[in-house]
Amino acid sequence: MEFGSKLLENAVNEISQLPGIGKRSALRLALHLLNRPVTQSEDLARAILALREQAKHCEICNALSDESICQICSDPRRDATLICVVEDIRDVLAIEATSEFKGRYHVLGGKISPMDGVGPSDLSIELLLQRAGQTEVSELIFALSSTMEGDTTNFYIYKQLAEFDLKFTTIARGIAVGDELQYADEITLGRSISNRIPLKYGNG
Amino acid sequence: MEFGSKLLENAVNEISQLPGIGKRSALRLALHLLNRPVTQSEDLARAILALREQAKHCEICNALSDESICQICSDPRRDATLICVVEDIRDVLAIEATSEFKGRYHVLGGKISPMDGVGPSDLSIELLLQRAGQTEVSELIFALSSTMEGDTTNFYIYKQLAEFDLKFTTIARGIAVGDELQYADEITLGRSISNRIPLKYGNG
Repeated sequence: MEFGSKLLENAVNEISQLPGIGKRSALRLALHLLNRPVTQSEDLARAILALREQAKHCEICNALSDESICQICSDPRRDATLICVVEDIRDVLAIEATSEFKGRYHVLGGKISPMDGVGPSDLSIELLLQRAGQTEVSELIFALSSTMEGDTTNFYIYKQLAEFDLKFTTIARGIAVGDELQYADEITLGRSISNRIPLKYGNG
Repeated sequence: MEFGSKLLENAVNEISQLPGIGKRSALRLALHLLNRPVTQSEDLARAILALREQAKHCEICNALSDESICQICSDPRRDATLICVVEDIRDVLAIEATSEFKGRYHVLGGKISPMDGVGPSDLSIELLLQRAGQTEVSELIFALSSTMEGDTTNFYIYKQLAEFDLKFTTIARGIAVGDELQYADEITLGRSISNRIPLKYGNG
């Protein structure tokens, strides 16, 4: 594409580096910014720079954090005996949105994937081993995606921690609430039958 | 959404101000930038700021330009007797990509739309009237979208310029090259029949 403006061309090239944004969308976004007050572009540029330059990883759980210890790890009301192991910060946000979990997290930063050149040392597994060995942790909940890589990562961590006196659990897989059985895939439906749970009513 | 990081929250809020990008996509983009070298975020921020703060509108045709006169208007090989009137810079890029047009452009910056509060004074129509009156212009090609607003804008400009000795044309509407007649809408097909053109072969 020939833009006739080096400034526009640069902006479009940079914006189209972002995942899922092609040249045409990037052009639309750049022209949108041009039609808006200059403060919007300034705020956007400043927020992106501040995030990239100032955001840290929590020294305890590796989650994204503004301080050296994240909000959850520094909250005494969160149960420190329970650690939910997740791939990235989006999983933390998703679980937090449920308000069902009162423990803490450990953010691996990915999963072991030899195909993508990601080994155990690329993830915050060493930090997790330290946490599991030193602190009052009693249960580790694996909440990685149920793919080959997720299972490999679960197994690797489990093997490393097998000697510790820990309870290992994984989040329940099954038919989503509101979904119809006939449309569920066989593996999910199969698992939801073999991992069936007792029916409970009222205070039972 | 609760992010646990003010920096992330700010970045997501700013990114999601862009059209077509929701909070979830904005989060994905912000996390993508966090996983990339800091230079990528810096380049992105710098390109956006430079575009917004330094890009000008060409003093002749109102197109986006790095200089006070754009590349096309300052190119002596472009036919100054022929002006193609378009809505915005994207139309210029689209027409330039065809390599079929050797004239110059006039970028209105929108179309007259009372519903959206856009009147003639919000567009670069005054500048077009000056151009048509002062220079060697002989033909105006209207290439606005064929909507109520586009037609209104065409008509408004035509009325303003009716006294000048100009040829007024509009781009041909018809069945797209490669499209099948049976799938064309009635208005387009009707126009392509009433505006039929002589069949030419070879050098005829």
